Amino acid sequence: MFPKNAWYVACTPDEVADKPLGRTICNEAIVFYRGHEGKIAAVEDFCPHRGAPLSLGFVRDGELVCGYHGLVMGCDGHTQSMPGQRVRGFPCNKVYAVEERYGFIWVWPGEAAQADPELIPHLEWAVSPQWAYGGGLYHINCDYRLMIDNLMDLTHETYVHASSIGQKEIDEAPVSTKVEGEMVVTSRYMENIMAPPFWRAALRGNGLADDVPVDRWQICRFTPPSHVLIEVGVAHAGNGGYEADARFKASSIVVDFITPETDTSIWYFWGMARNFKPGDQQLTDTIREGQGKIFAEDLEMLERQQQNLLRHPERNLLKLNIDAGGVQSRKIIDRWLAAEQSALIATDKVAAGQV
Amino acid sequence: MFPKNAWYVACTPDEVADKPLGRTICNEAIVFYRGHEGKIAAVEDFCPHRGAPLSLGFVRDGELVCGYHGLVMGCDGHTQSMPGQRVRGFPCNKVYAVEERYGFIWVWPGEAAQADPELIPHLEWAVSPQWAYGGGLYHINCDYRLMIDNLMDLTHETYVHASSIGQKEIDEAPVSTKVEGEMVVTSRYMENIMAPPFWRAALRGNGLADDVPVDRWQICRFTPPSHVLIEVGVAHAGNGGYEADARFKASSIVVDFITPETDTSIWYFWGMARNFKPGDQQLTDTIREGQGKIFAEDLEMLERQQQNLLRHPERNLLKLNIDAGGVQSRKIIDRWLAAEQSALIATDKVAAGQV
Amino acid sequence: MFPKNAWYVACTPDEVADKPLGRTICNEAIVFYRGHEGKIAAVEDFCPHRGAPLSLGFVRDGELVCGYHGLVMGCDGHTQSMPGQRVRGFPCNKVYAVEERYGFIWVWPGEAAQADPELIPHLEWAVSPQWAYGGGLYHINCDYRLMIDNLMDLTHETYVHASSIGQKEIDEAPVSTKVEGEMVVTSRYMENIMAPPFWRAALRGNGLADDVPVDRWQICRFTPPSHVLIEVGVAHAGNGGYEADARFKASSIVVDFITPETDTSIWYFWGMARNFKPGDQQLTDTIREGQGKIFAEDLEMLERQQQNLLRHPERNLLKLNIDAGGVQSRKIIDRWLAAEQSALIATDKVAAGQV
Repeated sequence: MFPKNAWYVACTPDEVADKPLGRTICNEAIVFYRGHEGKIAAVEDFCPHRGAPLSLGFVRDGELVCGYHGLVMGCDGHTQSMPGQRVRGFPCNKVYAVEERYGFIWVWPGEAAQADPELIPHLEWAVSPQWAYGGGLYHINCDYRLMIDNLMDLTHETYVHASSIGQKEIDEAPVSTKVEGEMVVTSRYMENIMAPPFWRAALRGNGLADDVPVDRWQICRFTPPSHVLIEVGVAHAGNGGYEADARFKASSIVVDFITPETDTSIWYFWGMARNFKPGDQQLTDTIREGQGKIFAEDLEMLERQQQNLLRHPERNLLKLNIDAGGVQSRKIIDRWLAAEQSALIATDKVAAGQV
Repeated sequence: MFPKNAWYVACTPDEVADKPLGRTICNEAIVFYRGHEGKIAAVEDFCPHRGAPLSLGFVRDGELVCGYHGLVMGCDGHTQSMPGQRVRGFPCNKVYAVEERYGFIWVWPGEAAQADPELIPHLEWAVSPQWAYGGGLYHINCDYRLMIDNLMDLTHETYVHASSIGQKEIDEAPVSTKVEGEMVVTSRYMENIMAPPFWRAALRGNGLADDVPVDRWQICRFTPPSHVLIEVGVAHAGNGGYEADARFKASSIVVDFITPETDTSIWYFWGMARNFKPGDQQLTDTIREGQGKIFAEDLEMLERQQQNLLRHPERNLLKLNIDAGGVQSRKIIDRWLAAEQSALIATDKVAAGQV
Repeated sequence: MFPKNAWYVACTPDEVADKPLGRTICNEAIVFYRGHEGKIAAVEDFCPHRGAPLSLGFVRDGELVCGYHGLVMGCDGHTQSMPGQRVRGFPCNKVYAVEERYGFIWVWPGEAAQADPELIPHLEWAVSPQWAYGGGLYHINCDYRLMIDNLMDLTHETYVHASSIGQKEIDEAPVSTKVEGEMVVTSRYMENIMAPPFWRAALRGNGLADDVPVDRWQICRFTPPSHVLIEVGVAHAGNGGYEADARFKASSIVVDFITPETDTSIWYFWGMARNFKPGDQQLTDTIREGQGKIFAEDLEMLERQQQNLLRHPERNLLKLNIDAGGVQSRKIIDRWLAAEQSALIATDKVAAGQV
């Protein structure tokens, strides 16, 4: 259960650099490739000739060629040509709205006609030279909402990431959740604590002492369908915490684009954007490597949680205060799903001539 | 189809030495761990907060801590605490009766209230200093009753274990099966034969000549739900066979605790107890290694037999005289299953106010 | 959906040289072994005693011995003996008609009574000393008809085998398909072209220049249930092409026996028969190795095509002129299936006393 009329991150440019990429998104098997003038394109990954996956083919002069018998598919879903054939009557492939922006390729797995590129959220850190970004991709066998829950309740850091970003004070600090239109914000502030290893390294990376008390913050922002951006950071204590001057702090934005593959699997695009030393590529690499290890710690937990839930469909889970971020996020998703369902029924009625 | 109100071997102490152990037994997902004062505990492997497996957590001061968000589960199934939460109203986890005895941890996957530790069979070889024991654990994808059949009809040794304990004379010796209350005993005696390789080594291990005729015996004892203990041995011929003085023989008890995981998979605890040279740890290791190789020969046969049976549900298997041990054992199991079913219906009627 | 009353290639002699072979063919689990005087035999792979696969056993004096408890199965499906048992009343195993011919073992998975060895197609290349043959076996997860389609439309060579036997001219040459009784023949002739790498090597292997224009031909012959033999070759241009004298050409027969394992998997026996330098074993090996690599290129395509089709059962595939070979072959298969179905209904009616 995921909204299909929404922008999801589908892949990164390097994944389509050399050849077409076949990827299932929201249960749709899609082939992504660079078409004319390098413009990204996305069509159903199914050759209308004999059903071969078009993603096993190649791109020639901006057109996708089926690797089985050479059918040439256009980015509009129409077969352009096929050796020795007239293709005018060939059935059309579904076409997906797709946009390349902010270093990602975004796809709208639902009705392409409804896809407005302006609905892709603005990501300042992706366009400003004052920011650097590094990230990666994990495939995880869990419902995308379990990952949203995970990210909207960072008390799990104390347990899952005990040796890096976790610390007892997260557990103990009160959490506040509010809904602002279609955004859910969960925040937690800790004052006058010692930074955990990951943040000590970040302080050092920014030329700051790592052995003095700090203020620490976590501000998680969910926006539908499934994006979670988290402002995180530490500042030498007594300088205003989150509001402290840049001289006193190390901070960043944890980036989480959670793309459903199927009902119980996701493509998880994770990364970190920082606005200190943006030109330091080695620091970017170090942070990405560290984050990759930390975020890998969630995989087993999420997959085993998913299996447990499938095994016990009758059990109701608790919704505690710490879960408010996930609970509110799911409410927004549910509203989107209901709206999509209503629109579908209305469309069907129109099609049936009932209105 | 297995009795749930019965004691099964769940694991060995080394498996819970460092961290909790998640294991499915009779279709119940259970976490085993050492609670207060090292006492073994077993609760449902499901965190009441968000469904994470508790077995991914850790033990702190005798309590099981969920590795996701720190919920503290008590060995009574009640949540003890959780950072920042009042836990009184949290739903309870199922608790399993569990006992540590004879070097094994035993679990009662059914109603804990009915679990009487006195029902665990007495194992003299496990407590007497005159005996030594070594064993191991295999996971096998077959119905637990196929393993009972296997062990209650040792003619398979001639074929499956031809190079170690098998010999043509097993096939040829008559077999006798009798039922004594809830125990099934199948026995076979062979006189004046040459010992096969495994028993030649055992004779040598006990300081006896291995190149002279021996009498050999196999006395298999099934007790429900699924324990099979087999007295096996050889004695220099003409000294009374099974009744011979210890000076003339090498004998032992093959130990088989067969614990259903699911309807078509088992945890198979195998081992050998011997009452000669009990202090010789190297001999224990050598025997365990040898037995481990021999018993591994059954795995493919049992798993492929299971697949064949699932594929041909319409085929009736033969019940020959050699199968009497397994057939009688299944009858006792069936009685237990029927009794459990009746009790369940009676309980339901009481609950429904019909009696 | 495959005809069961038909001869399929089951295995090659080397596969039953040392021990019985268990193989599923047309959803029938069969054990193949060499019985009395080395004569090939095939019975249901299920021991009537306890359901063990007989293929885990061994052959003793021309009889198949079950590896679990020593039941001796005859090639007529009757249990011959079992240690300590009277076997007269044991249920019979299904027996399969089986023939060793042309270097293959052929099986008739349907009614053995209908199996006429004369229906096995004559393979001149397998018996004539003027021919040499080399081949191999692949297991592929696809409907056997997808492989027939593949082989009856060689335009795929241009794409799937671009670096070896493919070339643009295949695509461009007109294809002709005709049905001759129960044989479908699809042929394509290309004139005055440069040979692709595989054929250049074949020309050299036959002592001919490889850098001159050639005529090339492909004549695919399907016969039911699922055999495809393809005459392929090149001749120095201007010598009559397919009809050219042997001095000017390199040619061979691509051999494809496609045996359904299940509805969506096959045993694919591929090979090449050639009538030049038949005594050159090293050339045979080189060709087999080359062909093996080329034919392995089809595997991913066929398996992914199969998955795509299972995912989109509602999509109708196109039937273009290039697909005529496969389409006509499927028509013949459909007729066989219908005939088999009618015979089955008639048999049932007879059995029910309605006629």
